[in-house]
Amino acid sequence: MPVCRVKIAGMGRALAGEKICFGNQVRYRLSLGQNLLDLAEKAAIQAIQAANMEIKDVDAIVCAMATPLQAIPCNAALVHERIAKGLDIPAIDINTTCTSFISAVDIFAGLVEIGRYERVLILSGDTASAALNPGQKESYELFSDAVAACVLSRAEEGEHSAVLYSCQKTWSEGAHDTEIRGGCGLLSAFCMKKSNREDYYFDMKGAKILKLCARKLPVFVNGCLEEAGVKREEIHKVVPHQASRALDVVMPRLGFRPGSYIDRVAEYGNMVSASVPFVLCEAIEMRQIQRGDLILLMGTAAGLTVNFMLMRY
Amino acid sequence: MPVCRVKIAGMGRALAGEKICFGNQVRYRLSLGQNLLDLAEKAAIQAIQAANMEIKDVDAIVCAMATPLQAIPCNAALVHERIAKGLDIPAIDINTTCTSFISAVDIFAGLVEIGRYERVLILSGDTASAALNPGQKESYELFSDAVAACVLSRAEEGEHSAVLYSCQKTWSEGAHDTEIRGGCGLLSAFCMKKSNREDYYFDMKGAKILKLCARKLPVFVNGCLEEAGVKREEIHKVVPHQASRALDVVMPRLGFRPGSYIDRVAEYGNMVSASVPFVLCEAIEMRQIQRGDLILLMGTAAGLTVNFMLMRY
Repeated sequence: MPVCRVKIAGMGRALAGEKICFGNQVRYRLSLGQNLLDLAEKAAIQAIQAANMEIKDVDAIVCAMATPLQAIPCNAALVHERIAKGLDIPAIDINTTCTSFISAVDIFAGLVEIGRYERVLILSGDTASAALNPGQKESYELFSDAVAACVLSRAEEGEHSAVLYSCQKTWSEGAHDTEIRGGCGLLSAFCMKKSNREDYYFDMKGAKILKLCARKLPVFVNGCLEEAGVKREEIHKVVPHQASRALDVVMPRLGFRPGSYIDRVAEYGNMVSASVPFVLCEAIEMRQIQRGDLILLMGTAAGLTVNFMLMRY
Repeated sequence: MPVCRVKIAGMGRALAGEKICFGNQVRYRLSLGQNLLDLAEKAAIQAIQAANMEIKDVDAIVCAMATPLQAIPCNAALVHERIAKGLDIPAIDINTTCTSFISAVDIFAGLVEIGRYERVLILSGDTASAALNPGQKESYELFSDAVAACVLSRAEEGEHSAVLYSCQKTWSEGAHDTEIRGGCGLLSAFCMKKSNREDYYFDMKGAKILKLCARKLPVFVNGCLEEAGVKREEIHKVVPHQASRALDVVMPRLGFRPGSYIDRVAEYGNMVSASVPFVLCEAIEMRQIQRGDLILLMGTAAGLTVNFMLMRY
């Protein structure tokens, strides 16, 4: 496992414009006339400014999003059109669903380390509201639309920022526990009928996912910590995917005490692929995470995919 | 630009079951009851066997496809379910539309070189037929459904296989020249009406793309060759994206004489992301490409994205 000398040079975030509440849970959905590219543009500009750069300094635009904006072209080309039209920066999508941001940092940290890229703009976020099923309360009341952006760049001489360890696993026993069956190649929009309309909604089998996670996650997390040679108490802050209100049950069971991890589910809900970078960005803004801190980005994603990444911020 | 010591250890390919002809042009479309995962499974098994491996030897399953099978989860998780259920191999999607295969080799060559992965299974292919517009003859008669697979692995001591040079650029002036506007986040399946039904079909502005390519490609290709320090005559075989019947016009204009590049458009049409790996696999089977040969993988993709990769097979 190579150490990759990269740093988060700047981050940005943008929430959808319509705020709604379910009891004490606050969620955000796109307002009329707003689309995800509006949020992407805002988050990207903020991240690039925070990094003291201009868009022309970036040498790859990466969309690490869970869902496609269009079937063709890739999301990064559409974001490119908003922020880099006229430039020739390559546009690339990376997708491991909800943990796409961690996967993209994992991948591009390696490519920066090896010299293939120098400064990469990574964007994560999804239009959850486009496919939420009003009939499935559990998921309908959980998600928010948001985008977060991050400039990942080579760490300079004397800087200690780095990706220290990263691991991803996928157990496809869970492939159909979180899904949107319709709208794309396997079941196109043209195939929608009254009888299969439900297939075009987001569908989450919450209890089944929790059961699979309970079976897989403890072994996975312990294995990663052991392989990385790091103890839980050495980690300054854990930044988990804001999967659901069960976060406060799942994290202590994985050995992370309340306070050691970020839980903003009540404030923002599950922001799909934006969850991890959004709350990371906020924690950096609030100086809960500072240069030199050892942080852990982790989460579960549809697949079932799990990611675990130790990073010195 | 780092040299990455990786090799194509094995390849496989699978064509859809229904053969149709438009004049002298042969195309393949999914037959009744067949889906892209059936082709993916077949191509993957063939590639793994050709590499003298078993699926458990692979340490990442990468879908480098242009289009999503479902909005959630990612394509690689669905392929994982077919070929690796019960195993914990990470599943990752990479997408730069038609040139996704080249991008994925570019990315994972770097990650193999740096030691993040050792043996990666890359699959490319799309269900073009799911969104073809019978009213747009130019695209309706062009595409085929197919999948190609490739095991990319570390080159052993004494082997000369490597990715020698790779470059990608995106010009989002072309973002809407090739697209499927409906079905996903920006315009969901639920928004389909009689008046916007056309938005859910694949839409290609062929003449506009050719014009943008004519303006961008010659400078791009010459720049890459110069940066790589390689002359056209040193390249044993060019493997271009099988974009359209204009291949025989475009390639000579880029300085590649007939015979120096593979043109299988009459036999297979445009197989979207499968085009490059499919004809590469066939050329290897036919021994037109042999170990040690310098090859060039290149192509244009919706975006507009262009890729150029020099590889010693």
